Amino acid sequence: MHSLPDKPAWLSRVAILGVGLLGGSVGMSLRRSGIHVRGYSRRQSSCQDAIAAAAVDDAFTDLATACEGCQVVVIAAPVDKIAELAIAANDCLAADALITDVGSTKARIVAEIESLSPATSQKFVAAHPIAGSEKTGVQNACPDLLDGKAVILTPGADTATASLDRAKAFWRQTGGRILTMTPQQHDDRLAAVSHLPHLVSSLLASLLDEPSMPLIGSGWKDMTRVASGDPTMWTAICQHNRDAILAQIDRLSAELAVMREKLADPDTTSLMQWLQDAKARKDATQ
Amino acid sequence: MHSLPDKPAWLSRVAILGVGLLGGSVGMSLRRSGIHVRGYSRRQSSCQDAIAAAAVDDAFTDLATACEGCQVVVIAAPVDKIAELAIAANDCLAADALITDVGSTKARIVAEIESLSPATSQKFVAAHPIAGSEKTGVQNACPDLLDGKAVILTPGADTATASLDRAKAFWRQTGGRILTMTPQQHDDRLAAVSHLPHLVSSLLASLLDEPSMPLIGSGWKDMTRVASGDPTMWTAICQHNRDAILAQIDRLSAELAVMREKLADPDTTSLMQWLQDAKARKDATQ
Repeated sequence: MHSLPDKPAWLSRVAILGVGLLGGSVGMSLRRSGIHVRGYSRRQSSCQDAIAAAAVDDAFTDLATACEGCQVVVIAAPVDKIAELAIAANDCLAADALITDVGSTKARIVAEIESLSPATSQKFVAAHPIAGSEKTGVQNACPDLLDGKAVILTPGADTATASLDRAKAFWRQTGGRILTMTPQQHDDRLAAVSHLPHLVSSLLASLLDEPSMPLIGSGWKDMTRVASGDPTMWTAICQHNRDAILAQIDRLSAELAVMREKLADPDTTSLMQWLQDAKARKDATQ
Repeated sequence: MHSLPDKPAWLSRVAILGVGLLGGSVGMSLRRSGIHVRGYSRRQSSCQDAIAAAAVDDAFTDLATACEGCQVVVIAAPVDKIAELAIAANDCLAADALITDVGSTKARIVAEIESLSPATSQKFVAAHPIAGSEKTGVQNACPDLLDGKAVILTPGADTATASLDRAKAFWRQTGGRILTMTPQQHDDRLAAVSHLPHLVSSLLASLLDEPSMPLIGSGWKDMTRVASGDPTMWTAICQHNRDAILAQIDRLSAELAVMREKLADPDTTSLMQWLQDAKARKDATQ
């Protein structure tokens, strides 16, 4: 098992709002340290599923009940629901409680909370654990999903220093490694390494025609794996981070044209060099 | 173990020219049926590696010695070396022997052999097993790599019917499932499902910048896996199938522009539908 830090004295009860793959994995990771985890879902059946999967100790369809006595609330909902849930949770919490999330975009969520609820902003530390899957649902959650994974924290201008300190300790307790940057830095970089690749994966899948299907190999399968992701979740991500993703699409289009020129050149020197450079860049990440 | 057909009576000895990942796996697959497999490599050290990996029974640096008494010669060399090796092997073989290959492109190889050596053309059945890896070398070969995988046969105008029949039986003996199409159909479809995705994978890898590296997740890793492939091999593939790949790049560019429009639209209906369609297309392949 991944070596976890000693549980901070102040941390004994956590609420997870939305217990799917990621929320469920956060719950399971915390339960390894003996932390009491409460689930919240609007649907009773989801509450039962979360308990059955051992992702939470108990679960409630009432937000105030779920949050009661919790030092930390983790919002694991689609990105377009996070600000609203954070503000609602704030009313149920003690003054020194922490609110955090797992959303794949950050700038718009932080800005929405700042403009709508300064009190929530002080408690809120936006977070993004770089962990997940094209799979969904608490039945695919696992306790070690976050172990050793980067968790990006993007505090806003109003975030209290004490909240940021607690957020670091909290996310370390899930098994994560903490990185801190601004919300916009996060969104620009995620557009490059996650949101654009996701759309390209969908694009490759959409281009598949019937006669080519029997010729599919492992390369195509790997490249289109994430195209199986939840369209609703990805539509919300695209909407939240539209400008940064558009900029990445334009960058890709320009580089695709450069690559086309190299390929069209009967002298293969430049294409070979380009393939070598790309391989070196890939191999450097391993 | 995959259920293999009974070994045809005529098939007892096979030469593999080039015993790397794929050639080695073909050799191992055949040895399961008690077929004697001979390796050929220009380097003595590669011959020793092939024997040490149990991919072949024996191995030689002399082509004529390797081919002697073989009913089948399998050329597992880079695509730009296959025609030359097929013609050289033809001189060492009986009249009813079969020459086949594992190259990722077909039209140019078939055309080259047709124009340079009609006698070789009769024996030659171009083949492409849809199996492989970004890894290379006989140390990564395995006996079941071809089990259940599609093996595309693309006979030319001069290919003898008897050669095609033997090729079908031979490739079934490796564990493969036989599909037959024209060399150009193969190349057009492979450009779509393999060669374009490979270049896109390299493109995504090449776009990675330093500050984004800590934010890489499993999606980026999967999409850039094949970018680790051998640049020399892929340069040869690109050169052989240039026109079909250029056509696929143009198709991708056009569809990328359509996708960009959907993303830029504040009304997300069209983007959501597109993501759903891409997911459905992907999920239909599983």
